[in-house]
Amino acid sequence: MKITVTRKEHFNAAHRLHNPSWSDEMNARVFGKCNNPNYHGHNYELLVKLTGEVSPETGYVYDMKLLSDLIKENISDRFDHKNLNLDTEEFKELNPTAENIAVVIYDILREKIDAQYELKVILYETERNYVEYPA
Amino acid sequence: MKITVTRKEHFNAAHRLHNPSWSDEMNARVFGKCNNPNYHGHNYELLVKLTGEVSPETGYVYDMKLLSDLIKENISDRFDHKNLNLDTEEFKELNPTAENIAVVIYDILREKIDAQYELKVILYETERNYVEYPA
Amino acid sequence: MKITVTRKEHFNAAHRLHNPSWSDEMNARVFGKCNNPNYHGHNYELLVKLTGEVSPETGYVYDMKLLSDLIKENISDRFDHKNLNLDTEEFKELNPTAENIAVVIYDILREKIDAQYELKVILYETERNYVEYPA
Amino acid sequence: MKITVTRKEHFNAAHRLHNPSWSDEMNARVFGKCNNPNYHGHNYELLVKLTGEVSPETGYVYDMKLLSDLIKENISDRFDHKNLNLDTEEFKELNPTAENIAVVIYDILREKIDAQYELKVILYETERNYVEYPA
Amino acid sequence: MKITVTRKEHFNAAHRLHNPSWSDEMNARVFGKCNNPNYHGHNYELLVKLTGEVSPETGYVYDMKLLSDLIKENISDRFDHKNLNLDTEEFKELNPTAENIAVVIYDILREKIDAQYELKVILYETERNYVEYPA
Amino acid sequence: MKITVTRKEHFNAAHRLHNPSWSDEMNARVFGKCNNPNYHGHNYELLVKLTGEVSPETGYVYDMKLLSDLIKENISDRFDHKNLNLDTEEFKELNPTAENIAVVIYDILREKIDAQYELKVILYETERNYVEYPA
Repeated sequence: MKITVTRKEHFNAAHRLHNPSWSDEMNARVFGKCNNPNYHGHNYELLVKLTGEVSPETGYVYDMKLLSDLIKENISDRFDHKNLNLDTEEFKELNPTAENIAVVIYDILREKIDAQYELKVILYETERNYVEYPA
Repeated sequence: MKITVTRKEHFNAAHRLHNPSWSDEMNARVFGKCNNPNYHGHNYELLVKLTGEVSPETGYVYDMKLLSDLIKENISDRFDHKNLNLDTEEFKELNPTAENIAVVIYDILREKIDAQYELKVILYETERNYVEYPA
Repeated sequence: MKITVTRKEHFNAAHRLHNPSWSDEMNARVFGKCNNPNYHGHNYELLVKLTGEVSPETGYVYDMKLLSDLIKENISDRFDHKNLNLDTEEFKELNPTAENIAVVIYDILREKIDAQYELKVILYETERNYVEYPA
Repeated sequence: MKITVTRKEHFNAAHRLHNPSWSDEMNARVFGKCNNPNYHGHNYELLVKLTGEVSPETGYVYDMKLLSDLIKENISDRFDHKNLNLDTEEFKELNPTAENIAVVIYDILREKIDAQYELKVILYETERNYVEYPA
Repeated sequence: MKITVTRKEHFNAAHRLHNPSWSDEMNARVFGKCNNPNYHGHNYELLVKLTGEVSPETGYVYDMKLLSDLIKENISDRFDHKNLNLDTEEFKELNPTAENIAVVIYDILREKIDAQYELKVILYETERNYVEYPA
Repeated sequence: MKITVTRKEHFNAAHRLHNPSWSDEMNARVFGKCNNPNYHGHNYELLVKLTGEVSPETGYVYDMKLLSDLIKENISDRFDHKNLNLDTEEFKELNPTAENIAVVIYDILREKIDAQYELKVILYETERNYVEYPA
């Protein structure tokens, strides 16, 4: 049977939810306070889950130190203390909802992690709102 | 691939575990302190999970503000600061275990949430005891 | 310099806030949902803090196992899975607000704990409401 | 003896740390990533503590529902989903460090809360960084 | 539909990660600080999840008090305040990684819990590292 | 009025509670499972609190990045993944109770932090046991 290992990291960022093809009224109605043109922000908590076989040599599915470094280099360093809409390539054209951020993080990590591992990303936008990808 | 979004809400309630078809001795043996005829209570933490497609227009699976309002109107307002056994229709005849409360909440919400979304309910009775429905 | 040691325990109970010398309207206006005549309940988290000198023989201010047992015997066993208004002597005539519960717990423990230790009680009624006595 | 009661609320905001009388190099050296001109953000957790006498009539030091409403009207509604530097009067000229935000919140609440209550504000900028005012 | 119930328990233990068939250099390179020959330790948080049908008589999937006792007798009493490498039979020849500890706990509990229940074990080694078995 | 700022860090370590001037029976009776000669361990959470004036130039009491680095260099690097009894000078002769560890950490940090700042150390040995020095 396979095992899932999880590593938790975090980053703090500003963002604004906005659909440029909509009117200001429509944006305000759909996104409410999250549409503030001057941005607001969150402490994002990120959990990265890998599923695979336990190596009989190490007793590890994946070295958690390596996974932590991989997340820091590819995700935290990219997004921490950034304005997601203005400072990142990924969200120049893509609305930085928690859902879209999770998919972007998944796509970045999927390329860095060997295909033998199943990958899942959980992103907390607040203590009371979080998303999981894939479901 | 689909995404799961989760919203956390809470309510505080009193309850008593009791099977009226059993003797007092049997009830005391099975339910222990939870059988106290004068009730005890909990801070229930409720997580509601919806799985679906991300809308390309909003970047949302489901508007978390709407989901929060839906839970408050249909669950928190119904159960918060209530005696589940005495003050609610749902548990007049049904033992208010965490399992049964979760099923009741699921059934209420399932009618209010479009069938395109998979629904799951997680209910914490205490920090150390919780249930998930469906499994 | 002195050190403070803290032990965290918990109990689950039902209660109702009510002043019998007031009208029902006044009780409803002041205590709101907490005045429900059928009770509601909470998972109470209790922190007991003792301040004193470190014993050079043990390196302890107070044995945490003994403090845990003392709290369980005198507080948790007394209040856990109880209706505070109906099942306890302490709140037959005293409104079981978090403030009054904390004072009652302090008074019970103060008699059991040697006077060389300063005592403080912190009581969480919910994750977002708590009281400390003495201030 | 007096009792302290605490209510926890929260708000999410963007900010930038910057001293306009310094060079860009000095700002970057002192404030590091927090000096990002495009802002970053946090989930701020706010605890408001009041110390006073327990009313023998209510068993309350202060009605937690009223305290919650007071914080929401005067603090959360003012700062939630805002850019502290751009959207608020308070931080137009004042660097929005956690320390300064806590002092501003204290000053706003101090005017709204009767002088018989001692007031203290605790502000978590992240799970690992928080400030208390007054000390 | 089935329901999952979860009980959380904990134990504190020392351990060392080491592969005796490797050189000291290889062990140091792979396991880093976790290879310290004098051991280090953790507060392990253990979640045990059972999935099954709700009994119409009790409203329980499984009595949480019985599950708690079962975990304490078979897991906490065995591993709490122990050196996993030196004091336990299970890890005399098996590297006590979080993955291997979770599999050992699963195998012990699987024998004690009726086959009608699906079983899953989640083990937190730290707040930021945890494993699930089976995946 | 002064402000207190707090930074939270952590380290994982093994230890054994033992008084070498006592008999084995006495040690077993006083320290219980914590006297295990093969050691056990904990995830220690460390909070360091500094109280001082807010600098009008920075809006800081103390740069939290510098405080974090100071704690890591002087405390975490010294104790993380160590056996406190065997691997550290500080606890060769001193019983590594939470109380004594907190005093040792305070004394190390007190020399590194300017005397204008009041210093306080809080150390969690488990989620339910913690100490504060000075009281």
